Amino acid sequence: MSMIKGIAASNGVAIAKAYKLETPDLSFETKKVEDVASEIKRLEAALDISKLELEKIKENARKTLGDEHAEIFSAHLLVLSDPELITPIEDKIKNESVNAEAALHDTATMFINMFKAMDNEYMRERAADIQDVTKRVMAHLLQVSFPDPALIDEQVVIIAEDLTPSDTAQLNKQFVKGFATNIGGRTSHSAIMARSLEIPAIVGTKTITEDVKEGDILIVDGIDGDVIINPTVEEIALYEKKQDNFAKQKQIWAKLKDEPTVSSDGTHVELVANIGTPDDVQGILNNGGEGVGLYRTEFLYMGNSDFPTEDQQFEAYKSVLEQMGDKPVVVRTLDIGGDKELSYLDLPHEMNPFLGFRAIRLCLERDDIFRTQLRALLRASAYGNLKIMFPMIATLNEFREAKALLLEEKANLVNDGVSVSDDIEVGIMVEIPSTAVIARQFAKEVDFFSIGTNDLIQYTMAADRMNERVSYLYQPYHPAILNLVNNVIEAAHAEGKWAGMCGEMAGDPIAIPILLGLGLDEFSMSATSILPARTQIKDLSKAEMASYKEELLSMSTADEVEAFIREKTNQ
Amino acid sequence: MSMIKGIAASNGVAIAKAYKLETPDLSFETKKVEDVASEIKRLEAALDISKLELEKIKENARKTLGDEHAEIFSAHLLVLSDPELITPIEDKIKNESVNAEAALHDTATMFINMFKAMDNEYMRERAADIQDVTKRVMAHLLQVSFPDPALIDEQVVIIAEDLTPSDTAQLNKQFVKGFATNIGGRTSHSAIMARSLEIPAIVGTKTITEDVKEGDILIVDGIDGDVIINPTVEEIALYEKKQDNFAKQKQIWAKLKDEPTVSSDGTHVELVANIGTPDDVQGILNNGGEGVGLYRTEFLYMGNSDFPTEDQQFEAYKSVLEQMGDKPVVVRTLDIGGDKELSYLDLPHEMNPFLGFRAIRLCLERDDIFRTQLRALLRASAYGNLKIMFPMIATLNEFREAKALLLEEKANLVNDGVSVSDDIEVGIMVEIPSTAVIARQFAKEVDFFSIGTNDLIQYTMAADRMNERVSYLYQPYHPAILNLVNNVIEAAHAEGKWAGMCGEMAGDPIAIPILLGLGLDEFSMSATSILPARTQIKDLSKAEMASYKEELLSMSTADEVEAFIREKTNQ
Repeated sequence: MSMIKGIAASNGVAIAKAYKLETPDLSFETKKVEDVASEIKRLEAALDISKLELEKIKENARKTLGDEHAEIFSAHLLVLSDPELITPIEDKIKNESVNAEAALHDTATMFINMFKAMDNEYMRERAADIQDVTKRVMAHLLQVSFPDPALIDEQVVIIAEDLTPSDTAQLNKQFVKGFATNIGGRTSHSAIMARSLEIPAIVGTKTITEDVKEGDILIVDGIDGDVIINPTVEEIALYEKKQDNFAKQKQIWAKLKDEPTVSSDGTHVELVANIGTPDDVQGILNNGGEGVGLYRTEFLYMGNSDFPTEDQQFEAYKSVLEQMGDKPVVVRTLDIGGDKELSYLDLPHEMNPFLGFRAIRLCLERDDIFRTQLRALLRASAYGNLKIMFPMIATLNEFREAKALLLEEKANLVNDGVSVSDDIEVGIMVEIPSTAVIARQFAKEVDFFSIGTNDLIQYTMAADRMNERVSYLYQPYHPAILNLVNNVIEAAHAEGKWAGMCGEMAGDPIAIPILLGLGLDEFSMSATSILPARTQIKDLSKAEMASYKEELLSMSTADEVEAFIREKTNQ
Repeated sequence: MSMIKGIAASNGVAIAKAYKLETPDLSFETKKVEDVASEIKRLEAALDISKLELEKIKENARKTLGDEHAEIFSAHLLVLSDPELITPIEDKIKNESVNAEAALHDTATMFINMFKAMDNEYMRERAADIQDVTKRVMAHLLQVSFPDPALIDEQVVIIAEDLTPSDTAQLNKQFVKGFATNIGGRTSHSAIMARSLEIPAIVGTKTITEDVKEGDILIVDGIDGDVIINPTVEEIALYEKKQDNFAKQKQIWAKLKDEPTVSSDGTHVELVANIGTPDDVQGILNNGGEGVGLYRTEFLYMGNSDFPTEDQQFEAYKSVLEQMGDKPVVVRTLDIGGDKELSYLDLPHEMNPFLGFRAIRLCLERDDIFRTQLRALLRASAYGNLKIMFPMIATLNEFREAKALLLEEKANLVNDGVSVSDDIEVGIMVEIPSTAVIARQFAKEVDFFSIGTNDLIQYTMAADRMNERVSYLYQPYHPAILNLVNNVIEAAHAEGKWAGMCGEMAGDPIAIPILLGLGLDEFSMSATSILPARTQIKDLSKAEMASYKEELLSMSTADEVEAFIREKTNQ
């Protein structure tokens, strides 16, 4: 038996045999062909079967993962029908009498290199799409089988270098019991997907694809980050026990599903979830969420070939509000621009997109886009408990302008006889240091704050968390972050407003006791973190945590903070 | 008469005739040549005369502007001697029997496009260099005269779209009385150069090159940002009076040259200057500076083809310290990386270089580079009043590590019998929000703070100030900035330390009264701002400004702050 250490990316224990997900050998010879017409037919057949497979995968993804995740396959299907790609391949076969493999490879490579060279994240993603789909077509031309995780029909643990969005979209929980990859971290795409699918996963093992042979029996311990290869009977028994314990733990969590979240000394806080599409609402309800703390509306725009219409948006917002009943739904207005590009919105390249023209900055300049969203939100407000929040607010004037536009559109709708709720709270994301620093001034004018720690930490530390060379500076427990969070909460309470948090920090077991002590009112996290967080808070005394406040705020480093909390809460 | 409004970029009034600095028509016909050998000779002659001119310009720049500014011409000279560029041009003449103009144009265009397409600021600058020098060679081939500002021998005002570094490096103050350009802002290269040359300048007029004909008489009023075209006799008399007044004002300033800087109610503050090279020291002494508040050591590295040796650095630091006598010299250790690249240091491309691997982050990882600089500084410390400061400090651990390396190298030098000063203060730049927020914790360990407002504002507002679409968010008077600055000053004083500021804000007439009121101890600015600032401070009451503190810190917007200060100080 041997054990490999990795990064625990998703809770739980899986025991099953290994299924290695590897791209087959797609090498080919360039050949002259005589019968050009039948070579083109061969290409068309490979394209057709690839399209059928992709339709199936897309449908599957839509069912298990929701519309948002299925969108990538629409993009893939478009590639396979794009005459700008297909015609040059056919021309190459005709004009140069080469085989379809060579024509496909050379043409695709040319486009891939061209898109990759462009200084534009969106075009680079198009390059990845073309690469992804041409591999499938090539496999059909070569008549080698292309791995389709969707076709797995026995219980396995998947082993791979990494899982792409198209891989994870095909995973069937009934058969795929867990996975382990060479690369990735806790916030990589595959890790997030594993948590949302609730299957154990370990990432960043570096060598798992070398260490494991197809068919090896594996234990994936997503609680501690261990993979055991070909375990003994005793080990299997041990881990089956761990599996049972975890299942029991989940049952204990499940009992809290309809309970409020109350600390051991009686303080109630609200545990809500972050969502991207109406399909995500079911996950909140299943996990006992008390509302939506952050509805990211970007996906409506990103999975589209043009701006979503007012009606399309209205339907999406209404669906979320209706599903949530009288529970609060905090919708963040469009946060696009910077690194999040839209194919149909031409924005100039920026040297530092994270410090650039995005979110409210873009919405206030392009108020045509913004007003459409505000009208859709206002119309939907009649169907539930809507709260609106503006992202990337750095100055009070930005908030005032955004709110004025909202009130203007509300007046227009009311004039037209449309019914609009009369008590929509209007708040802001606190994710820019300036706003956290003068929260006192903001608290007089906003209805609530939601602290977006992902960006707030990044700006406060001047470190791009996606940049591996400085990601060690992404320190949620840095005393400066705690001081800013405290400042925001105190400012809100001084004006009788509430303060929430919708960054990853809100679901972190080390941060939760600190935030409870600082008086945070609302914690917004992944749906699957809600029940563990509720369990943790039940055992915490808010008064005790509050008594550590001054000591924590005066600490010098993040390490000191973490060690202190671990000691006080036995973690 | 007509008047054009622009941005006042450099004080003073100039009256002289217009000299339009425009690139001549460099169009040519592609021709077949018979005598390839003599065509290559013609190319060589054009290259040789271009090199001679560039040598002259470089020498001129070195004398009037210092080594740092002359370096760009070394780069240009290298281009003209680079076989990777020249050989393909000669080959093209030989192989295709085309004229030198066509060969030069086609080859240069290929390289320029190639470098421009690269996703790398450094390579894009190389593209600009090639473009700049091939224009000069082309002009010689075509025998058209290429504008050489260095050859101007009568009093003029220069009118141009914009001034490049090579243009400004050639300006002779004796003849060039001022300039006005279409584009640029107060912090653009040409504006900074004008202030350092002390000639009036107006930038951002948008249309000046269209509005003015060669030889028009112009008044450039750099105080109010006006250009008057072909003024009447009365207007000339009026502006000559303004010119006189400005000269008198400068004389009043000059009287304060050897005076301390004392507010009307007797508080002394220190006015010091920012420098880039030892050549800049004379400007401080001429302007009554009380020390160096920021010595940017990057130029030593950027104007070099390899890392400067310990001895080269030692000589530079020693020169500054000796020139300054017992006045304090604050040296900032290397702030390289991010957007400031070195040709000989290969760093990966970053998505957000301002939030990336730079300054102390790079120095702590590459401690070989860092230790060399620290040793050079320690050796130089024996020759004056040295203070060392670390840039981009975000955590206390970074400061502790950097200081430990300094102490280690000090011990090594002392062991080797090298004399090192025993009272070097060691401080930090406060330019990252986290550090400003927990300044209280830092103040216990550092000897001083110097607030770098250029970066601090940029990070606090999450807005890249070089990005035109969000530069309106670069707000020095934003109450959040004032609160952070106040926090840093209070933290320093609580521990008996001093706090300075070395960003542009320190020399700003609106900011100066606020900073005086908050208790800032040291103001570091451009040398030419020192005497105006001293004059301003003499008339300000510190007690009065301090009495506004709470009111200012509680304001909601930068506009409110500015209006308040303008009213209280009659600006």
